Amino acid sequence: VVTSGANIQKQTGPLAYGPNVPKVPDGDTVEIKFDVTHKLFQVKKDVLMAGWLFGDSIPGPIIHVRVGQTVKFSMTNRSSDSTMSNMSLAMNMESMKPMQHSIDFHAGMVNPEDKYRSIAAGETIHFMWTAHYPGVFMYHCGTPMVLMHMISGMVGMVIVDPKDGFPDHADREFALVQNEYYLKQASGSVYAADTIAALHRDPTYVTFNGKVSQYVFRPLRVKVGERIRVYFLNVGPNNISSFHVIGTILDKVWLDGNPANEFTGMQAVLVGPAQGAIIDFVLPEKGSYTFLDHSFANATEGAAGVFIAE
Amino acid sequence: VVTSGANIQKQTGPLAYGPNVPKVPDGDTVEIKFDVTHKLFQVKKDVLMAGWLFGDSIPGPIIHVRVGQTVKFSMTNRSSDSTMSNMSLAMNMESMKPMQHSIDFHAGMVNPEDKYRSIAAGETIHFMWTAHYPGVFMYHCGTPMVLMHMISGMVGMVIVDPKDGFPDHADREFALVQNEYYLKQASGSVYAADTIAALHRDPTYVTFNGKVSQYVFRPLRVKVGERIRVYFLNVGPNNISSFHVIGTILDKVWLDGNPANEFTGMQAVLVGPAQGAIIDFVLPEKGSYTFLDHSFANATEGAAGVFIAE
Amino acid sequence: VVTSGANIQKQTGPLAYGPNVPKVPDGDTVEIKFDVTHKLFQVKKDVLMAGWLFGDSIPGPIIHVRVGQTVKFSMTNRSSDSTMSNMSLAMNMESMKPMQHSIDFHAGMVNPEDKYRSIAAGETIHFMWTAHYPGVFMYHCGTPMVLMHMISGMVGMVIVDPKDGFPDHADREFALVQNEYYLKQASGSVYAADTIAALHRDPTYVTFNGKVSQYVFRPLRVKVGERIRVYFLNVGPNNISSFHVIGTILDKVWLDGNPANEFTGMQAVLVGPAQGAIIDFVLPEKGSYTFLDHSFANATEGAAGVFIAE
Ligand SMILES: [Cu+2]
Ligand SMILES: [Cu+2]
Ligand SMILES: [Cu+2]
Ligand SMILES: [Cu+2]
Ligand SMILES: [Cu+2]
Ligand SMILES: [Cu+2]
Ligand code: NA
Ligand code: NA
Ligand code: NA
Ligand code: NA
Ligand code: NA
Ligand code: NA
Ligand SMILES: [Zn+2]
Ligand SMILES: [Zn+2]
Ligand SMILES: [Zn+2]
Ligand SMILES: [Zn+2]
Ligand SMILES: [Zn+2]
Ligand SMILES: [Zn+2]
Ligand SMILES: [Zn+2]
Ligand SMILES: [Zn+2]
Ligand SMILES: [Zn+2]
Repeated sequence: VVTSGANIQKQTGPLAYGPNVPKVPDGDTVEIKFDVTHKLFQVKKDVLMAGWLFGDSIPGPIIHVRVGQTVKFSMTNRSSDSTMSNMSLAMNMESMKPMQHSIDFHAGMVNPEDKYRSIAAGETIHFMWTAHYPGVFMYHCGTPMVLMHMISGMVGMVIVDPKDGFPDHADREFALVQNEYYLKQASGSVYAADTIAALHRDPTYVTFNGKVSQYVFRPLRVKVGERIRVYFLNVGPNNISSFHVIGTILDKVWLDGNPANEFTGMQAVLVGPAQGAIIDFVLPEKGSYTFLDHSFANATEGAAGVFIAE
Repeated sequence: VVTSGANIQKQTGPLAYGPNVPKVPDGDTVEIKFDVTHKLFQVKKDVLMAGWLFGDSIPGPIIHVRVGQTVKFSMTNRSSDSTMSNMSLAMNMESMKPMQHSIDFHAGMVNPEDKYRSIAAGETIHFMWTAHYPGVFMYHCGTPMVLMHMISGMVGMVIVDPKDGFPDHADREFALVQNEYYLKQASGSVYAADTIAALHRDPTYVTFNGKVSQYVFRPLRVKVGERIRVYFLNVGPNNISSFHVIGTILDKVWLDGNPANEFTGMQAVLVGPAQGAIIDFVLPEKGSYTFLDHSFANATEGAAGVFIAE
Repeated sequence: VVTSGANIQKQTGPLAYGPNVPKVPDGDTVEIKFDVTHKLFQVKKDVLMAGWLFGDSIPGPIIHVRVGQTVKFSMTNRSSDSTMSNMSLAMNMESMKPMQHSIDFHAGMVNPEDKYRSIAAGETIHFMWTAHYPGVFMYHCGTPMVLMHMISGMVGMVIVDPKDGFPDHADREFALVQNEYYLKQASGSVYAADTIAALHRDPTYVTFNGKVSQYVFRPLRVKVGERIRVYFLNVGPNNISSFHVIGTILDKVWLDGNPANEFTGMQAVLVGPAQGAIIDFVLPEKGSYTFLDHSFANATEGAAGVFIAE
């Protein structure tokens, strides 16, 4: 269902932003509302990308539900909000003008023709989907040119717990989304998404949770010996990730977040574009442990962070 | 055994072309004959590649046998057939002239020195191989420069059923081969395979069963709720594929087509160059479901198609 | 612990160089000493790279231990040895001058801040690590710019056996490390590692055990019908490998070398950068069997070799 007109309800729902993991809400139905806006998004110091954003962020908010729950989802396309129009006029940037958008939930099982349809600026779409499989799933905008919408920031994570929760108690959890940026300079510190570069599969930056090396500057704090669980998602759009934590071995890995797909004692996890994983490990002694994509150009271009264990 | 002279028997055997899957023939021995020709092959509207073809097609014909069956295989190198010579003279294309060819069956277990040897134009090779493992296997020409022979079209699929057939009854089956094209313009709408581009790993097009976006234009028709089985093969030559169907989750995946290598509830299947997979899923409601390589530059360059479920 | 001054003890320990696999030593503690030098290393005929080397070789020496054993490790940074200084002056090469180095063992579980710290020319580092997981693990220099240190040659393999050894008796074993070279010409046949090329993920050469096509020129000899075990490690730094042996099927594969991660009947094994695998197969008849990375630009650029079965 698509509606028009002034929908004043803003983003709502049991959401969180990575690296935080939201709790699974109670009940059979979960109401979630996203807003889509066009805004400048800071990728690193002196680099602002003209972004198309779910929930004002790259990646968008994290949804966390359980198998059997139904998501009552709605989304408003606010790409024509007045604040954005002024900026686009000022910047004279094609990519900041109002545009159609949509959303595609890999965790859902629905006809994409109506659920994942594109809506114009000012419109709101409503639909429901039920979680049938556990996992760590991607969502992203599905409006053509899909590659452009993805590299402009329209990506995010859904975690679906099995009915009885995940096995193997974890003491601390983080959510990490890995994405590739393809940028061309527009003006000064403002950059635009570059589909030509994206078609060459040669990223400008690669990040965890949207910002270059952010967890190097703001490390994630953990306790020595506790079981850490990372919900990991590689949204690409193009390349693989080889996730690794320096100084330890990844005790248990569930590919795409399903415990049926279990690996043990991995040094690195190979995660394709649009694949996820749940990765459990322990940090053995006090210290500082870098995590990164061991496809090393990616790490060098920003896909690295630090755990401090105390 | 390699023979010369006029061998008038053309291609024969219990074969089919993707997306159709041939039936497994009865009996302990299966006789199959391929022809290799040099022909222009249409990759998309206004793009004809100077191709080297098994069975007049890219990919070549599909072979479907059972563990324990022996294939009595023969192949004639018809690259000097008169119709081709004229075209090559007219086009002045080096790549259309008669050339040596061979075939390498990943499903076989034989000494490559004699079975996979190269034969000259006019010659016919005969050899046998027995299927010992179930799976979805690649075949391809193994004549140096192998990269050139593969990107010129000499690729295809063999499906091997376990002795007692595959588990989990499927209602409908399709065969999809994913390949990368590397093209440089020769003249007008005629293109040649480009090994320099192939060494840069940066494809011009990526397709399912040889033609850009063909199943977008001619969707595959299925029934709502039925169990669909895709025999998938990524022939590369270079890059991974992240196979995904929008609007559903891949219920069961057998990597390289062996039921021992089972994954459950995948959002996308990471398939390396020269790997295959059997992928089972259900489409939940009436509608239109795009399937694609979620390494998204590949989808943008042609690796996308549509299922229509009714 | 880091010490300075003249440490005259050279490399020591129960080591071997690929393709040979060293024996697991007896006892609870294994003493191993590495030296790091700057030397020209021959990649292929007429191509010498200004290398930074563990144990005078690319890849470095192979360590083979068992779960529960503790490695008493030490390493001397000899990058300022007089023989090297002269050559660097002569060559006027920035990359041959004395430099800091370190080592990171993926098989270890330690705080990287002190164990994997960088040491200056003339210094020696001592630390211990215990093997807790079986597998085929990478080691590499972790000194920034890590990408530069890896592509300059500072990579190698550690094999860790389970407490009771690996299952499935193998008759013959080989160790193969796959790496990418990124080179720019310095002068004549001398080349330097090129980080710009490495950031483009587009290798100059890809090799098994450090030298282009070396096992094509010097094939590995095996017996028909015997069970061959390859300890395989892809050190990248950037790209995947799709390991394949022409003429056979890979009977059993343990991803990252842990028997818990078992695959059966694979035509090719997809190994990410910084991943390993144990790969068992049989060659069925007398003959010549090429092994290669079936991501075929990589094979074309040197990642190919031959087994001769008699
Ligand atoms: Cu969009
Ligand atoms: Cu998607
Ligand atoms: Cu050929
Ligand atoms: Cu092959
Ligand atoms: Cu170093
Ligand atoms: Cu590492
Ligand atoms: Na989703
Ligand atoms: Na780049
Ligand atoms: Na085959
Ligand atoms: Na391209
Ligand atoms: Na190691
Ligand atoms: Na190259
Ligand atoms: Zn949960
Ligand atoms: Zn606990
Ligand atoms: Zn390109
Ligand atoms: Zn069948
Ligand atoms: Zn049925
Ligand atoms: Zn290149
Ligand atoms: Zn051993
Ligand atoms: Zn034996
Ligand atoms: Zn580049």
